[in-house]
Amino acid sequence: MKNHLWKHILAVRTQSPLVHNITNYVVMNNTANALLAIGASPIMAHAREEIDEMVALCGALVVNIGTLDHAWSDAMLKAGHRAQSLEKPWILDPVGAGATSYRDQILSRLVALRPTAIRGNASEILALAKANQSRTKGVDSTAQSEEALDAAKALHELTGAVVGISGETDFIVSDQPVIQIHNGTPLMTRVTGLGCSATALIGAFLAVTENKTEAMTAAIALLSIAGELAEKISDGPGSLQMKLLDKLYNLTEDEFKNTLRIEC
Amino acid sequence: MKNHLWKHILAVRTQSPLVHNITNYVVMNNTANALLAIGASPIMAHAREEIDEMVALCGALVVNIGTLDHAWSDAMLKAGHRAQSLEKPWILDPVGAGATSYRDQILSRLVALRPTAIRGNASEILALAKANQSRTKGVDSTAQSEEALDAAKALHELTGAVVGISGETDFIVSDQPVIQIHNGTPLMTRVTGLGCSATALIGAFLAVTENKTEAMTAAIALLSIAGELAEKISDGPGSLQMKLLDKLYNLTEDEFKNTLRIEC
Amino acid sequence: MKNHLWKHILAVRTQSPLVHNITNYVVMNNTANALLAIGASPIMAHAREEIDEMVALCGALVVNIGTLDHAWSDAMLKAGHRAQSLEKPWILDPVGAGATSYRDQILSRLVALRPTAIRGNASEILALAKANQSRTKGVDSTAQSEEALDAAKALHELTGAVVGISGETDFIVSDQPVIQIHNGTPLMTRVTGLGCSATALIGAFLAVTENKTEAMTAAIALLSIAGELAEKISDGPGSLQMKLLDKLYNLTEDEFKNTLRIEC
Repeated sequence: MKNHLWKHILAVRTQSPLVHNITNYVVMNNTANALLAIGASPIMAHAREEIDEMVALCGALVVNIGTLDHAWSDAMLKAGHRAQSLEKPWILDPVGAGATSYRDQILSRLVALRPTAIRGNASEILALAKANQSRTKGVDSTAQSEEALDAAKALHELTGAVVGISGETDFIVSDQPVIQIHNGTPLMTRVTGLGCSATALIGAFLAVTENKTEAMTAAIALLSIAGELAEKISDGPGSLQMKLLDKLYNLTEDEFKNTLRIEC
Repeated sequence: MKNHLWKHILAVRTQSPLVHNITNYVVMNNTANALLAIGASPIMAHAREEIDEMVALCGALVVNIGTLDHAWSDAMLKAGHRAQSLEKPWILDPVGAGATSYRDQILSRLVALRPTAIRGNASEILALAKANQSRTKGVDSTAQSEEALDAAKALHELTGAVVGISGETDFIVSDQPVIQIHNGTPLMTRVTGLGCSATALIGAFLAVTENKTEAMTAAIALLSIAGELAEKISDGPGSLQMKLLDKLYNLTEDEFKNTLRIEC
Repeated sequence: MKNHLWKHILAVRTQSPLVHNITNYVVMNNTANALLAIGASPIMAHAREEIDEMVALCGALVVNIGTLDHAWSDAMLKAGHRAQSLEKPWILDPVGAGATSYRDQILSRLVALRPTAIRGNASEILALAKANQSRTKGVDSTAQSEEALDAAKALHELTGAVVGISGETDFIVSDQPVIQIHNGTPLMTRVTGLGCSATALIGAFLAVTENKTEAMTAAIALLSIAGELAEKISDGPGSLQMKLLDKLYNLTEDEFKNTLRIEC
């Protein structure tokens, strides 16, 4: 598995896939920087008038509802539909699922477009699967990721998507045995948008491999390991954000393989 | 006073209040990071359809008009109204007040919703209070903060809000004697959005204490001290931004109390 | 030439021109920080209701179509028209020109408003000039900047604008002999929005000198040199972004003149 994952990391670096992001305002800058750091080519675009052409141009689509509104939801739905028609891989990040009825309503329409992959924290995955009626506390995770496993399995069965649950341990749920990744550091939760970055990186990996379980695993492993190594030379969340980008860029095969803690 | 302020800083770290921001595009990322660094939970959301639910979920609301337009102004007004109805604390940042008639028109409608707190630079506070007809030069301060004291008092009398004036010396104007904070460093004016970060941090403190004068004082002191300490190990505005976030996260009680220069 | 360019850098630092940006969501934060670092005063504003007043207040206007949509395109067109009427300098950044027909349609309307300056990568300049029907691969450059020289000349003849082509070598095309700048580092392409920053800095320089060829040359030289020097002390794109801002702020005359590699 470690060799496969590293091979995908090299594929992103060499193929430089174009990743179309319809994402939230908070994270656009560091999402673009994370994609550039791993060797991908980010594009952010949301105008109705160009959605069809943009989705067609790109290797994968990333939809993140963090700061959704009427116009942006329309763009997301149009893009998801276009990706489905073209059989392009696309990933959904259900930011704040369960926080408001509006989010849940837009999300149910997006889920109906059968994303290739879904990634969220445990609260979001739970809310998305209606496995739990509890309201999430905004965008931070309040439920333990283990509790969301059943919800993730239900979502996978409903949509066919590979489903990622982020947390202290990350879980990847698909038609394969559940994969657990034990990398990362709690300080990563004090930097905004690293979950959103994970989603965007998964998009980049979906563009270079047909094995969507491995694509998600490689992306989450890469980000978690980069964060874990960056934390060792950081004084807080500000330096972590900077050094994480450096590490995404210059991570070596040895560092990756020696740091990865994975259970399949 | 120093003990009270430190107690509030600990309260934010332990209670992790959810802070709802309707703010400008420029600063969303570093505002979220500043809130996370002090231990708060930021959420950015502006869709009309979810404003009522979001304001109800959160401990405080932050409204910042920096990049306002028709749709966002509607959201800000709706949120301010909702916060007023629910008696939730909310703070207004009148970015660029006086620069255009549109800003002044929206601001007068927001002020009528009686924010719990208002924070701006001297030019903005002057413009907001109509104490001075001079046009501000955009979002940088051209008036000295001392000159805006009368304007701040007028705003306080009009709305009941505690009013903060940012500058070389920061002033906090309420029904208490005026408080002056002499921390910070001029290099902070070369990093975009640190005033906006101050406003957001005040929001977080308003969520954990009913004493709104102390809430504003604690937030401004915390940010100014973090900036002042960060500047000592910075080579310019880039490193200041990063090290400021680190310092917001790891500031100790001793550092806070030994650095604070306050006059009550 | 070196003395002229340095004189313009000092003029920005001392005059602190107000630069009005209607730009994309991805880069707003680091564009504002880059402008602050060189001593300019950025303002970001796009509401139809205040465009006319804002353009009148500012020393220069920057229009960047990166994340355009219907409402923002309207604002850009209105602002370009206003700048033209007031004879204020303004610069166009045709991000992603050629990627979609929508972009090309809005761009042709903007070009008709005769920007004072245009800056893009080779693909964008080629697309903008219709000198080449090839589609760009999003916002990264796929064509070599040399190939775009004819396109830049055509654009200059059409609009009167000074035209900059960014790449390994940067070209400045105007009614003067073509200027080449051989500074910068490939790592700069792994940080999002440095091209957009270049455009914004050009805006600041256009506000302090009537010689638009020198304005663009000084801005591009300053950013490229700052990036080149920052790269020497960086571990990757994260630290490059931070140290670039530091260097924009503290670059000395000796560093500038000793590092500049220019051909006129």
